[in-house]
Amino acid sequence: MTSRRMRLFAFDFQGPAHLSAGLWRHGADRGDRYTSLRYWTDYARLLEQARFDGVFFADNVGYHDVYQGSVAGALSDAGQIPANDPFLVVSAMASVTENLGFGLTASTSYEHPYALARRFTTLDHLTDGRVGWNLVTSYADSAARNLGTGTQVPHDERYDVAAEHLEVCYKLWEGSWEDGAVVRDRAAGVFADPARVHEIGHHGRYFDVPGIALCEASPQRTPVIFQAGGSAKGRALAAGHAEAVFVNAVSIPSLARQVQQLRGLAAGAGRDPQSVRVLQMLSVVCAPTDEAAHAKYESYRRLVGYTGAMARYSGWTGLDMAQFDPDVPFRNVDTNAGQTMVDLFSKMDPDKEWTPRDIAEFIGIGGTGPTLVGSPATIADELIRWMDETGIDGFNLGHGVKYQDIADFVELVVPELQRRGVVWTEYEGSTLREKLYGPGTVRLRDDHPGSRYTVRADDRPRPAAASDYEVAV
Amino acid sequence: MTSRRMRLFAFDFQGPAHLSAGLWRHGADRGDRYTSLRYWTDYARLLEQARFDGVFFADNVGYHDVYQGSVAGALSDAGQIPANDPFLVVSAMASVTENLGFGLTASTSYEHPYALARRFTTLDHLTDGRVGWNLVTSYADSAARNLGTGTQVPHDERYDVAAEHLEVCYKLWEGSWEDGAVVRDRAAGVFADPARVHEIGHHGRYFDVPGIALCEASPQRTPVIFQAGGSAKGRALAAGHAEAVFVNAVSIPSLARQVQQLRGLAAGAGRDPQSVRVLQMLSVVCAPTDEAAHAKYESYRRLVGYTGAMARYSGWTGLDMAQFDPDVPFRNVDTNAGQTMVDLFSKMDPDKEWTPRDIAEFIGIGGTGPTLVGSPATIADELIRWMDETGIDGFNLGHGVKYQDIADFVELVVPELQRRGVVWTEYEGSTLREKLYGPGTVRLRDDHPGSRYTVRADDRPRPAAASDYEVAV
Repeated sequence: MTSRRMRLFAFDFQGPAHLSAGLWRHGADRGDRYTSLRYWTDYARLLEQARFDGVFFADNVGYHDVYQGSVAGALSDAGQIPANDPFLVVSAMASVTENLGFGLTASTSYEHPYALARRFTTLDHLTDGRVGWNLVTSYADSAARNLGTGTQVPHDERYDVAAEHLEVCYKLWEGSWEDGAVVRDRAAGVFADPARVHEIGHHGRYFDVPGIALCEASPQRTPVIFQAGGSAKGRALAAGHAEAVFVNAVSIPSLARQVQQLRGLAAGAGRDPQSVRVLQMLSVVCAPTDEAAHAKYESYRRLVGYTGAMARYSGWTGLDMAQFDPDVPFRNVDTNAGQTMVDLFSKMDPDKEWTPRDIAEFIGIGGTGPTLVGSPATIADELIRWMDETGIDGFNLGHGVKYQDIADFVELVVPELQRRGVVWTEYEGSTLREKLYGPGTVRLRDDHPGSRYTVRADDRPRPAAASDYEVAV
Repeated sequence: MTSRRMRLFAFDFQGPAHLSAGLWRHGADRGDRYTSLRYWTDYARLLEQARFDGVFFADNVGYHDVYQGSVAGALSDAGQIPANDPFLVVSAMASVTENLGFGLTASTSYEHPYALARRFTTLDHLTDGRVGWNLVTSYADSAARNLGTGTQVPHDERYDVAAEHLEVCYKLWEGSWEDGAVVRDRAAGVFADPARVHEIGHHGRYFDVPGIALCEASPQRTPVIFQAGGSAKGRALAAGHAEAVFVNAVSIPSLARQVQQLRGLAAGAGRDPQSVRVLQMLSVVCAPTDEAAHAKYESYRRLVGYTGAMARYSGWTGLDMAQFDPDVPFRNVDTNAGQTMVDLFSKMDPDKEWTPRDIAEFIGIGGTGPTLVGSPATIADELIRWMDETGIDGFNLGHGVKYQDIADFVELVVPELQRRGVVWTEYEGSTLREKLYGPGTVRLRDDHPGSRYTVRADDRPRPAAASDYEVAV
């Protein structure tokens, strides 16, 4: 049995449906309430009562229009569209919780670092240090078309933009407002000491940001950095900068290899390999008994639709799956993302030749991560085995049926995991970074590249700031 | 006495201080709590209990660094810096209220319409139709420097960008997802009917947005459009598009002229002149008696700082006021915004020559709007007189001391206004647009230019959408 605490994140989306295809049709699905604030505040309370570390919102600023060259398949199955902006629900969810963390996806390709840094700092203030950034570079051509750059920046260069974007953000978060810059001296009439607020002077290849940050330093300064990139450039960025990496392995051996590789890359980048927390994406279908869980899973399978699954898969891979016979295996494809996805399935079971329909059935419930099915004891056994045999730190839990699958997990599996001592019964440390690294670690660790931009509060006594006030209060 | 209902908005800012200079030093000021969610949810409850129509958040993505060529003066007085992002607090404030509206400032110069439209739609969903957009084109060079365009687009061209930006937003809000596009047919397996979701096909001078909106239609579709531009181009934009205009007159005659001019321009643009609601920016210092109110005002005046006031004024006008003797009147200046501001003061009192110090004392409490001082009866008399003699529809209430001034207004003045029947005791219509135009007017009025982009739900019977589901639920 593992001695390490299992981190739990709920993986969600600000729309009626996320990765699962057709399950919005299930009678218990609550995706129809996604525009309701009450839905999200109830959800936040549910997760906090179960001592989840956080909720993690995927996002996309494009949509899936690769399948049959049209967005129709995605629309008819709520295939990640409609998609509201996840940043905007956080303050409501934070207002009814004290410990739940919030992971937010934002693209370095379509957000300016000066504006994005401000959004994260604002949320880090309002949540008292509970936000994280899942850094993505965006893959959809539709995003490039609608966000005005016409065509996408090539894949590898997107990572160069991402690296500079991150650098600008670090400078704004870590290097502009010193701790103690806000003096709030009512008598002297000094709110912030200008000598302790620094221009960052960034002049780079993609961005020019010479000035000061708009916001004073927030509890975590830099939000927890998450990353999920699977390409070589993506893995390098994750190993260098991510504090937690979302992985998407389909089997334990493949996951163990990925973890080892990631931590090796992190060590190569000069970081403590254990600074890279790894969270596996995975869905759980549980019921009081194994038999009931399998019956539930079968009822889900019957709802999965081929079009909705292929609309998503085609969007993720950039490969129009309509060109293939659903029941004939296919192998090599000529896209970068497409090859990654094909690799994913061929690695899971090298002896199996996957047909499009096999893939649809697999991803239709919970997306590309595996789905565990069983009683609370079975699920707990499996989750612990995944941790023990791979070295991961926890899970990013997807769902088939929206809300209800997580509610079932909370009701059935969490108590079992708590009995086994792997999931906590009380929070320790309220910020998101403390959930990864333990109480007291609120700011970036010293081995993180962002920490080199941190301005330390200067201990030298300072001359009193100039004041034009004669009357003190 | 006026027969029209007086609209009340609270004018605020996501920072420790807004327009008033030095008043953050007052013992009752609560600006030090601006990073606390609880502060903002308490504030929302306060405003809703008093039946305010809404809270309106100013914003700036630059900062005031014109005075003495440095941001130091602004920093030392919290002169609109630090400044958090106002969008992010709305869902928390909405979660504890049911009727309060939220006006949000966003710049057409630094936000891409595809992303901004999505933000507003998301908030309009989460608030059940309670958001409005104060459209600004941004004036600060510091914003241009840090947001990557290097130098600002010239003033007049910024308004051309704004007009096209608005057009893109209208197309996304009004013309992409039909009412009824979301079918949610569980049996047929059709979430949204692709035939009812339209690409907007926008190809303009500044933006290319060919695709569909990411979000389904929200209660109001287009958020209520607010505008406050004072230049010729700004007034034309306001007259053509604004549903409510914030004005900033310093006297009743000047306000009456502005209202008449605005409504004339609106009529010229083919709109019902009464479709343009006008809200005057104004601050109130009140106490149970006139004498006590004046004593309170004097106590505020003693806190006003010259540097903080001039840091703001120099930023607004683009004119470094440090070049002038504080006690010598000045007149013509060679900046567009600067001339507007100078005009503002010369028009208020043509016989007075304003010195920089006079201006500092005037704007130091509540900014460029006038400040009314008195007992509840005096204030009520004055507010009603301003309405009756100018034709405005209500007020955007600034403050000297943060939170406390609005709390005093709520406690003392609102009951007096309710007794006189000009402020409602119960809300009618929960959306923001209904607060301007009355119950039932949730969407753009027909005379609004955005309404020409609205796709109407087609009444023709439609063929059933294709489905790959065999099992109905």
